[in-house]
Amino acid sequence: MAPPLPSIKSAHNRPAPSLEPLLRLMAADLDRVNALIVERMHSPIALIPQLAGHIVAAGGKRLRPLLTLGCSRLCGYRGERHIAIAAVVEFIHTATLLHDDVVDASDLRRGRDTANAVWGNKPAVLVGDFLFARSFQLMVDDGSLRVLDILSRAASVIAEGEVHQLMTANDTATDEDAYLAVIEAKTAALFAAASRVGAVLADRSSDDELALERFGHNLGIAYQLIDDMLDFSAHQAELGKTVGDDFRDGKITLPVVIAFARGDAEERAFWRRTLETGEQGPSDLNHALGILERRGALAETLARARTYATAAIEALARFPDNPMRRALTEAAAFATERRF
Amino acid sequence: MAPPLPSIKSAHNRPAPSLEPLLRLMAADLDRVNALIVERMHSPIALIPQLAGHIVAAGGKRLRPLLTLGCSRLCGYRGERHIAIAAVVEFIHTATLLHDDVVDASDLRRGRDTANAVWGNKPAVLVGDFLFARSFQLMVDDGSLRVLDILSRAASVIAEGEVHQLMTANDTATDEDAYLAVIEAKTAALFAAASRVGAVLADRSSDDELALERFGHNLGIAYQLIDDMLDFSAHQAELGKTVGDDFRDGKITLPVVIAFARGDAEERAFWRRTLETGEQGPSDLNHALGILERRGALAETLARARTYATAAIEALARFPDNPMRRALTEAAAFATERRF
Repeated sequence: MAPPLPSIKSAHNRPAPSLEPLLRLMAADLDRVNALIVERMHSPIALIPQLAGHIVAAGGKRLRPLLTLGCSRLCGYRGERHIAIAAVVEFIHTATLLHDDVVDASDLRRGRDTANAVWGNKPAVLVGDFLFARSFQLMVDDGSLRVLDILSRAASVIAEGEVHQLMTANDTATDEDAYLAVIEAKTAALFAAASRVGAVLADRSSDDELALERFGHNLGIAYQLIDDMLDFSAHQAELGKTVGDDFRDGKITLPVVIAFARGDAEERAFWRRTLETGEQGPSDLNHALGILERRGALAETLARARTYATAAIEALARFPDNPMRRALTEAAAFATERRF
Repeated sequence: MAPPLPSIKSAHNRPAPSLEPLLRLMAADLDRVNALIVERMHSPIALIPQLAGHIVAAGGKRLRPLLTLGCSRLCGYRGERHIAIAAVVEFIHTATLLHDDVVDASDLRRGRDTANAVWGNKPAVLVGDFLFARSFQLMVDDGSLRVLDILSRAASVIAEGEVHQLMTANDTATDEDAYLAVIEAKTAALFAAASRVGAVLADRSSDDELALERFGHNLGIAYQLIDDMLDFSAHQAELGKTVGDDFRDGKITLPVVIAFARGDAEERAFWRRTLETGEQGPSDLNHALGILERRGALAETLARARTYATAAIEALARFPDNPMRRALTEAAAFATERRF
């Protein structure tokens, strides 16, 4: 029996929403995607599969390729092409992760176990390039110029968003509009493209394509808002990465934008010292958490995320109510209620 | 009047071969390529055109896009598509340059005025990604899956070659086969693809396509061999970059491979110390030059390059003898006789 539609507002009264229904429905296809990923990241240059395997195997949620699989199924697609296109989406995401972890000498205080930390910047960049090129080869083999158009455009928007993010880093004058522009580009663009190509594969109307794009776009924003919130509020063990990384990197995320806007002179001086000049002492992260709590910045970020998740769910309204729509709906609810 | 066919063997008895004839024949088209490059590297994120402009304007020879222009003309192509595809080739090359200049903390002794040195690794990597994605958007707009296939394959081979090069760096056991495999991938693949697509645009036979691929491939190897030779032997002012960079980076290039193979125990110990352990003193570059001279390693590298350039010229034999074929022939001769 299909689970009841989760209501975001009452999520705390029932079992937490999860990716399980989507994973269950697409399990066989996701296995094939994973097999194709391993097959297509092969190269006679041994370092390439080694390094790519490190990040591909690192246990991501495979949320983006799941969107491609789920949206193509939602649109009634019954062919084989969604497997390769889902692998393309994961390759683009993985290449982005590898390049996002590039550090400059000044960032060496970060001690994460990234591929870059293990192998160095340069191999990570070049293997990212390899995966990126491979993703285009997979699309060329697929042969759809529409899919190529949507995903090459997303790739270029992602790169723009990443550069934009660099330019807002350490700048406490960053406002909500600039922050939103960054996450729309660096995160939501790939969620949107991954969802939209599901309709393209099934040859659906452009209204259906645009509805799924809207679904992915809003889901992506919700997902990133929660990512930024969890960077301050997660339990270390659940998150699987270090709490406070964004703070230490001087990244300006929505919790900080809100707290800065609502803060008094003393608080603003604190944010400027810690984020703009990068002068941070051992107690500063805790002090930041105190301010964020006092100013309601994390609660406000969560509320915004829920609004976007609701918009994502509403975008699915034109599709028939069936287990796949319910699974995608729950995935959107999961994006905001997750703890990791 | 068309210039006489330059003979490589007697190049020292006549005016040095140059890119001039090719540049002259394609001047109007190259201007359009340059304008399109500037137009398509635009982004509302100001750092992108700034940084991309730094490297695009840095006065490269535009040899790769010139090959696309020249080969399409050689094949009788009279349309407009060669402009965009030549820009694609230059974007892929530029992205590769930006990523090739990524440094790790251990490499900071290098003081070149690269985009990375000026802006940092991360912006350079992300702008490279943007140009790479843009190149695919241009190809999608062009709409040829054949062109997409050839250039996406080249991009993935280039990335493999760059990783392979990292793995041979600091390893004096690198032999000629490994060295050749590296330069075939990191350099010759794009020369070959840039030339081949000229025939694709003109809808020529696959024999013509393969002949131009062979032309570009051999020319690319010759070009890289001379690059590696000039790193030891150029006049600083002519080269436009620092003599001895490869030596300081511990790169194993053909001059070193040859000198190592021909060297005695003392010389091999020298190469191991300077290239494997990276222990270099102020007089070591001069000492290296002395060994290379004594072992005939630079002369041998030049001789090999001329053999590849001859093979490139021979690949043009199936095309009618006309000013364009003569210009491409002279470009191949230029590749080995250049001083910069």
